[in-house]
Amino acid sequence: MIAVDANGADSGVATVAEGARRSGVPVILFGPAAELDGPSAMIDLVDAPVAIGNHEEPARAVRAKPEASIVQAAKAVAERRAGGLVSAGATGATLTASLFHIKRLRGVHRPAIAALVPVPGHPTLLLDGGANVEVRPEHLVQFAHMGAAFMEAVHGVRRPRVGLLSVGEEAKKGTPDVVEAHERLAAGQLNFIGNIEGRDLTAGVADVIVTDGFTGNVAIKVMEGTAEMLARVSAAAVRGSPLSALGGLLIRGRLGDLRRDLDPDTTGGAILLGLRGVVVIAHGGAGSDGIANAIRLARRAVDEHMVERTAAALELSGALRSAPAASFAPAHD
Amino acid sequence: MIAVDANGADSGVATVAEGARRSGVPVILFGPAAELDGPSAMIDLVDAPVAIGNHEEPARAVRAKPEASIVQAAKAVAERRAGGLVSAGATGATLTASLFHIKRLRGVHRPAIAALVPVPGHPTLLLDGGANVEVRPEHLVQFAHMGAAFMEAVHGVRRPRVGLLSVGEEAKKGTPDVVEAHERLAAGQLNFIGNIEGRDLTAGVADVIVTDGFTGNVAIKVMEGTAEMLARVSAAAVRGSPLSALGGLLIRGRLGDLRRDLDPDTTGGAILLGLRGVVVIAHGGAGSDGIANAIRLARRAVDEHMVERTAAALELSGALRSAPAASFAPAHD
Repeated sequence: MIAVDANGADSGVATVAEGARRSGVPVILFGPAAELDGPSAMIDLVDAPVAIGNHEEPARAVRAKPEASIVQAAKAVAERRAGGLVSAGATGATLTASLFHIKRLRGVHRPAIAALVPVPGHPTLLLDGGANVEVRPEHLVQFAHMGAAFMEAVHGVRRPRVGLLSVGEEAKKGTPDVVEAHERLAAGQLNFIGNIEGRDLTAGVADVIVTDGFTGNVAIKVMEGTAEMLARVSAAAVRGSPLSALGGLLIRGRLGDLRRDLDPDTTGGAILLGLRGVVVIAHGGAGSDGIANAIRLARRAVDEHMVERTAAALELSGALRSAPAASFAPAHD
Repeated sequence: MIAVDANGADSGVATVAEGARRSGVPVILFGPAAELDGPSAMIDLVDAPVAIGNHEEPARAVRAKPEASIVQAAKAVAERRAGGLVSAGATGATLTASLFHIKRLRGVHRPAIAALVPVPGHPTLLLDGGANVEVRPEHLVQFAHMGAAFMEAVHGVRRPRVGLLSVGEEAKKGTPDVVEAHERLAAGQLNFIGNIEGRDLTAGVADVIVTDGFTGNVAIKVMEGTAEMLARVSAAAVRGSPLSALGGLLIRGRLGDLRRDLDPDTTGGAILLGLRGVVVIAHGGAGSDGIANAIRLARRAVDEHMVERTAAALELSGALRSAPAASFAPAHD
């Protein structure tokens, strides 16, 4: 069972509900019952009309609105009524509700948003995609271990290549924090390939790319914006003459397949790593297929025991906050 | 007269010399005479075979190698034998040699690398592109004033729209330094449009985009890498069937024009703002046309009195380090 927050998607509550239906996964939908169809075989419904918006301060709003859909959905995971959570609403509210109720894995400094970069043929995980605008070196090291564990567990990549995003390949390039993280990763057990640069994000040279949440958020959105800009200006250029317009018609089918591969909706969204449960942040602009893919991604992460495997990898890594001897207790087993 | 460092370009010394010839601008070329043709009507030659590489620590190398081509070229600008400097060599060495010899404008905290983002129809200046991997809010505010002055002086944009790169549009989004820079810019005299996100970099919504040198460097390279990846996978997709391959032939001419607009070589390179002279950092991978465009950009910045106008704008801005009453003395008038 996956808990789905119906509020907050740009495309509205009905689109999220339609995505839940299309996913083929049993879900509990938290949203305004007045705008939703009744429950069905696959869909439980919890009336939760209150939403938390992007403009609200997340910690305050999550505390002040226990009845909000995202808070109720996170509690459903914490109380093991659901195995995972999907929301296309405000990222800050999803992160905060998850931290408060689902909670961090023991020894994890900070959860990170892990996003799959759509490089055809080379799925590349970038984290942090925006959960932490400021990080310390030990956070970056944990992100590396969490990202590698995710790519092994959910995407079947053996000994994932881990790169550290910086402004040059040399170990000394970057901020002091990045330089220190480089040293620690180079001395550690991961398959660390060193610093990579912005160009390498889409080059398929790494399976996991580690960075702070400010740079990671900007990088992902620059990539999306550049792809949109190029599609727009290319289409305009091709329409500019009758001959090239004909050419444009002839290539449309092939490029359509490619466009689907590159569409952020296809990957389903980003996943929060470092929590005691599966949380997927769907693209705010996702359509119903995007929501369906996000729900399927959450289901796969639950089925593949992503949380347990990430926790086990962290235990072995020596990168935990206080190297606890006791094991963890995930919220959703 | 523009001082050109012939060393350090990926494509070699001869390509830089060819670029100098093509530029149509009088230059002094600093490089290994053994690999260069003799002087001509437009080209003076200074034998300077020593180069500073990307792997060297810039401050140490610039001090230890006064005979290096980039150091000699910077001195030529400082001593007013040349009006501006162009290099496709190691950015760190160019920046350091410029700081040591051409020097900062009075009251400027840090020079910034300003790069024109190739958005067709909407030239957009992004700074800092990598000179300062860590910045304080007052640095970001100065970057905004310097970038706006450049777009007015060299690109004729009236009251340039200035955006601050962050992870959300709201004033409170971003690191504490970004939030503080936002407050100061909102209270200032520039045409400040607030925070912009990574997607907006290529959307033509701002004329000047301000960020730290780490994020800026990553953003520019992500943009380049994404464009390359899309060109590569699109070409492969189009070649995949005979019909679409024919379509590809029909659109080739129109897309060729577009590719030229998007080529980093077309803009000539990035410019260092905040110095007492014009310094252009050509793309390391520039061909001879890219070098020629970089030299023409330097010449235009000299002709348009970019340094004096940037200095005057900074004086008026109240954003100088110690609000001096005395005026500055640029190195190249």
